[in-house]
Amino acid sequence: MSEVREKASKAKAVVTELNRLSTEQKNAALRTMADALIASADAIITANVEDLDRGREQGTPESMLDRLALNKERITGIAEGLRQIAELPDPVGEVLETFTRPNGLHIEKSRVPIGLIGIIYEARPNVTVDAAGLCLKTGNAVLLRGGSSALSSNRKIVEVLHQALATTAMPADALQLVEDADRASVDEMLKLNGLLDVIIPRGGASLIRTVVANATVPVIETGAGICHTYVDESADEAMATDIAINAKAQRPSVCNSMETLLLHANYAEKHLPTLAERFREASVVLKGCETVRRLVPTAAQATEEDYATEYNNYILNIRVVENLDEALQHIAHYGTKHSECIVTRDAAHAERFMQEVDAAAVYHNASTRFTDGFEFGYGAEIGISTQKLHARGPMGLPALTSSKYRITGNGQIRQ
Amino acid sequence: MSEVREKASKAKAVVTELNRLSTEQKNAALRTMADALIASADAIITANVEDLDRGREQGTPESMLDRLALNKERITGIAEGLRQIAELPDPVGEVLETFTRPNGLHIEKSRVPIGLIGIIYEARPNVTVDAAGLCLKTGNAVLLRGGSSALSSNRKIVEVLHQALATTAMPADALQLVEDADRASVDEMLKLNGLLDVIIPRGGASLIRTVVANATVPVIETGAGICHTYVDESADEAMATDIAINAKAQRPSVCNSMETLLLHANYAEKHLPTLAERFREASVVLKGCETVRRLVPTAAQATEEDYATEYNNYILNIRVVENLDEALQHIAHYGTKHSECIVTRDAAHAERFMQEVDAAAVYHNASTRFTDGFEFGYGAEIGISTQKLHARGPMGLPALTSSKYRITGNGQIRQ
Repeated sequence: MSEVREKASKAKAVVTELNRLSTEQKNAALRTMADALIASADAIITANVEDLDRGREQGTPESMLDRLALNKERITGIAEGLRQIAELPDPVGEVLETFTRPNGLHIEKSRVPIGLIGIIYEARPNVTVDAAGLCLKTGNAVLLRGGSSALSSNRKIVEVLHQALATTAMPADALQLVEDADRASVDEMLKLNGLLDVIIPRGGASLIRTVVANATVPVIETGAGICHTYVDESADEAMATDIAINAKAQRPSVCNSMETLLLHANYAEKHLPTLAERFREASVVLKGCETVRRLVPTAAQATEEDYATEYNNYILNIRVVENLDEALQHIAHYGTKHSECIVTRDAAHAERFMQEVDAAAVYHNASTRFTDGFEFGYGAEIGISTQKLHARGPMGLPALTSSKYRITGNGQIRQ
Repeated sequence: MSEVREKASKAKAVVTELNRLSTEQKNAALRTMADALIASADAIITANVEDLDRGREQGTPESMLDRLALNKERITGIAEGLRQIAELPDPVGEVLETFTRPNGLHIEKSRVPIGLIGIIYEARPNVTVDAAGLCLKTGNAVLLRGGSSALSSNRKIVEVLHQALATTAMPADALQLVEDADRASVDEMLKLNGLLDVIIPRGGASLIRTVVANATVPVIETGAGICHTYVDESADEAMATDIAINAKAQRPSVCNSMETLLLHANYAEKHLPTLAERFREASVVLKGCETVRRLVPTAAQATEEDYATEYNNYILNIRVVENLDEALQHIAHYGTKHSECIVTRDAAHAERFMQEVDAAAVYHNASTRFTDGFEFGYGAEIGISTQKLHARGPMGLPALTSSKYRITGNGQIRQ
């Protein structure tokens, strides 16, 4: 039996046991995991140094190595994350509907764990702990498949967590790490129907595309974000500027940052030169349409491909549109259904934008950077779903549950 | 451009327009569709006769031809179904959550249409109308791909519905029928990411397997049901008998009927011979384990394969188990997570069964035949989901919606 199938089977074997755990037992396990990470910080850092050394040998860029690096402070932060998850309300058992039918059948629909969740992710070893914590809190078993660049760190972290779980009511087998660094192990996970109930990819656009194109197990698609801000003719200039700069430059590497700014033609004529100067100060490189290039001669020409690119960087497309309709058309064509914003003082335009734009989150007069489980007050986030089924937008703990109907009768049969 | 892509594109082009329709406009369109079906009953019946004639030439069994056949009464029933859908509450616009964050952002999560839904189904032409009605009521466009054996009927029905829609506020392009009878048109639908938001297969196990194995578009898996009834030692004999007979024989062809009866050993010793006689009277052929065959000599030997088969017919496996644990193990191994029942007077056993069995619907002292959108009081049903994401169990109108976050601010930016 392959490693993937063996570990998935082990995890699957404990889902019933997990389902029986009380909220208190699960929270106690998460806190024990947090304590163990801190107690074993030195061993984890030693393992992490192996990953970093290997990365340097392979010429991995420093920015990537920085995301991979662990130190005591980061490990403390990761452990703190587990403690925060323990504090959150447990969605499992929540009654969603309850009703009695005319024939006396009592029907209750309540939240249950999904079962076995597969997470496929890239470099950062904090995802190992974070994903494990979120899945175990919701009574799910989890099969993790992290990037090979963090394998030593992930292996040591899971070893520490396994030892910790062995002292709790939670079965250690509920947490499994695929160590096989070969791409074939990902391919096998994608087709593990009957064992895996869902796969959540966490990473870049290419990882997500591979997963969606090849999985036969249900997938929750996360992350890709080509987000737009449309500044309408009537927008308040100071507000529009603040929102646009924030959406682009506060943290360009994340999925809810802006990639293209759409400006109403009259707004652009009046305010674009000043706005462009603000972007320059924020180190943002501009690309634009013909009108933009007339108003901002330093801007490069934006191409079709640029409009379809998630830069995740200090680069911005600006396009001038004649009206709201043209903005809506641009977003419908290039958007990834993540987060879209209109800045306007025109209530009817705002309403139309909010209604017609097909995205997980639509904003009126606020930065798209708020699409985030923590900013929404959910206290946790397993990702931001850009698909329409099961969960859409920031996914908190309830997104890691399914439901079940419990029907109680006294001998009812169907006529 | 292929027929599938062309029709999907046409349907996709009107999703924004659909989204803008009021509940009243959608209901009026459904009622106009119902009237048109009745007014054009003769033409539909003529087209149906073509399908029936072709079926007879090809040697289609009479039972299949009966499911395909339309007459005035059936068409009236189908039209009545549309009127009933018009009467149901519209889930679109329902506010699911609303809250204000400390920074003043107002966040509202509400139900929106999914977009473009693909339905792949088999013979019965009533599904054409039913699926169209459910999707249009929820503001979705729909791409239908019915079985080739009903193509003439489906084509005529859709022609009639298109003419009807042309007189309403609902764009006729929202309803599209794929006429290409080649399997390649199904394969193309399954990979129509970016156009189709979800595919729902309605039909037999083999259709569903094909869809799940090949789709890159998200799928809602429906239907396959290997349902069990476990009669515990303490069960009331009259109740257990009624429930078992009902679950098997009231309508064996449907997914929520029972395929395997599990009997506690002590119950079997006392009551199986009488129960077997009742099954004989109900024309049910029995297969069983060794113990069953000792108690009911006419029963055939049940094999591993039998336990894994959805008969959809007057055939039943009976297996004697030593205790609840063995029953739970059997269900975990052979069940399809659809509907499972325990008949018992032991509250602790009932609670354990309801908690531990992993299925969309778990029953205590009632027939599994109740797993049905109408029996649950949902007033409609697009199918019964046996998967765990998005919707589980009978899917009413809300299962055909997604959600969207609308965030209203006054210039908030992220710190």
